[in-house]
Amino acid sequence: MDGAGADFLSLDVRSVPRGRITEELVRRLREAVAEGRLAPGDALPPTRVLAGDLGVSRGVVVEVYRRLADEGLVAARTGSATRVLAGANPTPPGVPAEPGPPPPTTGVEFDLAPGVPDVAAFPRAAWLRAERTVLREATGADLGYGDPRGHPRLRGELAGWLARTRGMRVGAEDVLVVAGVAQSLALLAQVLRARGVTRIGVEDPGARGAREALAHWGLQLEPVPVDGHGARVDALARSGVEAVLLTPAHQFPTGVVLAPQRRRELLEWARGGNLVVEDDYDAEHRYDRAPVPALHASAPEHVACTGSTSKTLAPGARIGWLVAPHRLRGDLVAAKHAADLGNPALPQLVLAELIAAGDLERHVRRVRARQRARRDALLAALHRHLPAARVEGVAAGLHLLVTLPHREPGSDVELAVRAAGVGVLVHPLSWHRVRPGPPGLLLGYAATTPDALVEAVRRIAPLVTAARP
Amino acid sequence: MDGAGADFLSLDVRSVPRGRITEELVRRLREAVAEGRLAPGDALPPTRVLAGDLGVSRGVVVEVYRRLADEGLVAARTGSATRVLAGANPTPPGVPAEPGPPPPTTGVEFDLAPGVPDVAAFPRAAWLRAERTVLREATGADLGYGDPRGHPRLRGELAGWLARTRGMRVGAEDVLVVAGVAQSLALLAQVLRARGVTRIGVEDPGARGAREALAHWGLQLEPVPVDGHGARVDALARSGVEAVLLTPAHQFPTGVVLAPQRRRELLEWARGGNLVVEDDYDAEHRYDRAPVPALHASAPEHVACTGSTSKTLAPGARIGWLVAPHRLRGDLVAAKHAADLGNPALPQLVLAELIAAGDLERHVRRVRARQRARRDALLAALHRHLPAARVEGVAAGLHLLVTLPHREPGSDVELAVRAAGVGVLVHPLSWHRVRPGPPGLLLGYAATTPDALVEAVRRIAPLVTAARP
Repeated sequence: MDGAGADFLSLDVRSVPRGRITEELVRRLREAVAEGRLAPGDALPPTRVLAGDLGVSRGVVVEVYRRLADEGLVAARTGSATRVLAGANPTPPGVPAEPGPPPPTTGVEFDLAPGVPDVAAFPRAAWLRAERTVLREATGADLGYGDPRGHPRLRGELAGWLARTRGMRVGAEDVLVVAGVAQSLALLAQVLRARGVTRIGVEDPGARGAREALAHWGLQLEPVPVDGHGARVDALARSGVEAVLLTPAHQFPTGVVLAPQRRRELLEWARGGNLVVEDDYDAEHRYDRAPVPALHASAPEHVACTGSTSKTLAPGARIGWLVAPHRLRGDLVAAKHAADLGNPALPQLVLAELIAAGDLERHVRRVRARQRARRDALLAALHRHLPAARVEGVAAGLHLLVTLPHREPGSDVELAVRAAGVGVLVHPLSWHRVRPGPPGLLLGYAATTPDALVEAVRRIAPLVTAARP
Repeated sequence: MDGAGADFLSLDVRSVPRGRITEELVRRLREAVAEGRLAPGDALPPTRVLAGDLGVSRGVVVEVYRRLADEGLVAARTGSATRVLAGANPTPPGVPAEPGPPPPTTGVEFDLAPGVPDVAAFPRAAWLRAERTVLREATGADLGYGDPRGHPRLRGELAGWLARTRGMRVGAEDVLVVAGVAQSLALLAQVLRARGVTRIGVEDPGARGAREALAHWGLQLEPVPVDGHGARVDALARSGVEAVLLTPAHQFPTGVVLAPQRRRELLEWARGGNLVVEDDYDAEHRYDRAPVPALHASAPEHVACTGSTSKTLAPGARIGWLVAPHRLRGDLVAAKHAADLGNPALPQLVLAELIAAGDLERHVRRVRARQRARRDALLAALHRHLPAARVEGVAAGLHLLVTLPHREPGSDVELAVRAAGVGVLVHPLSWHRVRPGPPGLLLGYAATTPDALVEAVRRIAPLVTAARP
């Protein structure tokens, strides 16, 4: 089946208790994959079609597909269908059977999805120590309805952190504490929409999640091509947008640093009355090159810089910051207030304590050394098992990009499906593209031990070198 | 001055560094109050007018007024001007000078704002103990990008809690973890708007903050009168709205419990294809009457019930729940995902641990006993110093309502201004009204010791019994 309706589920929604429709749909789709009715590469029906066939709201089907994606069973691509990634069949047809360890029978053994940090390194002892201090010292006012902009103590510590690590000239009053970069994008999108902005530029390739977030809030996306020097500012200027979301310090997913000439062009464009949203998502993870100061440092009234502790501490911390031009601040605070009245108090105070005590910096240094060793192991394995591979984005971040310039656009999705078939979860580059382009594989290494990285590469190497079926 | 423009600020915005406009405006307005250029009762200029005069965005002025309101310097009322509450003059003109303690010179001494819980009772030791357990036992997956619906463990514990304390028949899969009731209202408003709902009923009088939240998300408010039996369902039905926000278990601010006949009428109305949003904001705080089960228990497919730990633990916890009809769930989860990807992980696990270990229940029982003593002290003081006062809403909650049926509608705002003049912060009932109605004063008692409550009443009694100036 490919793009058909709901028949393959043999599901009569009326027979399902109303409260169980989402769960039941997830279960049936899992079953369909397990029993081979849905094979790797098969497209799921468009959400609108399946919702219509089943007589449920589209939100239910979106949620079902999201959960299957979270489980690594399916992958979606903008403007294209959601396709089955993992299969019941451990060796998809056309892939040479491998000698060595038996093929996996229960899904993902090696999760090399990019952007997953090493949560095993989470500084539990330091966190508990900080929490004890906070609970001893917090006043009643600290625990009450707080300032929607964030606790003054954390805003002060974050300002210092951003000055030290990102070269930003900011004070406590410049920092808005948010629930991660996702919330920054939500707040900025709301404020821009309310001011009549309807389109925003996004890097292509660029982070799929960020694109989806902006689109959710009603912004139309204008893809800006990325080359070896970073985002193409000439294309951005021609597009006529007034705002753009960029990753200048470490482009996701290519790993390119915005070249000095491009940076100048970008600042000139921004100073002409436009806004750059700088997603500073993993600035702390650099290995072989000097840190690139945040773009915000050069033009604070034209750049809204956002980052979080998701890649340094844990995504589950849901704490981040947004430093925006003054003209947007009143509206951003109102939007944050309307969203949730402000971040929870205790984690804010704990993070402030971790920064003040030097624990966060020590943690980042320790994790950086560990990740460098993992990156080196992955690089060595790639050189050994895929000597012809072109590897990019090695100087910083949590993942590498293996480009496949001689393959067909979009063929990386099939490769990822096959990799899943041998127990290795990787992202196809196409997943993060808006327009078709050369294929590639993103290999995250931060959360995987060196030995496991070597084994993962050994498993996927034959798939990459094999001729296309 | 009254409703005039920006002249009284003698402020040339061009002379203020861009980053300091909000701070500077707050400072100037504070100064204007301190120096008597703005007197208690004076109206501030409408936000649009002041923003236009100053050439700043309206959001900046909204934020400035909000901060002044947070400081207790001003109070706003829907459809009316923001007025100065506190004054430089400790004894506003027309108020008889009091013998006894010297008049306050630095603002609020007794904060009797309703809805402020006793954060001094926050169970710090139990929280730290739970955090230690959580940090020892949490897996890497617990700290990663989580389920936007909330951690399964907390959802399960909350389901049990709601079943035990609120009579709701729910399982873990029915609970959406949110960042407090404010976020529930934001998510529901977004989902309703996306489905074409443009109007929502709100209780009058009713919680001002909730009204403002719904209005922020573009819903028009349709006031539904409240009488001694609760919200008038006949008026609700006549209004033609498809959704209403209610506080059936303990109406805010009157303290009325929705009468059985009204409850039946409301359920009938809801089952006719409408939605009740049940704000179960302080269900745990009851003293002299049996708990009223949540309305949700009677019609789970027509009621979205939301509550939080803001009144039991601390507002700064920012954890709540939303149990909504199934037809809304997919969209609500998508909205929560777009808002912030989900609540932070550690506080969710800590709360789950507190519920599982029985700590939350013990804490609520302890706080309840303490609050009952405070309520009794406040009641006794009112009987002594204001023997003719009509007091309502004594059986539950965190505040009392003193009604002033013989006074003019709106005159309670002036009374609150005078109370602030003697160091006592109270809310005028009019502040929570949409349409004019009999005046009253809301006296919160949860966060104030019995002795302080007695002193606060002693100070405001002469203002209440004095003839209107």
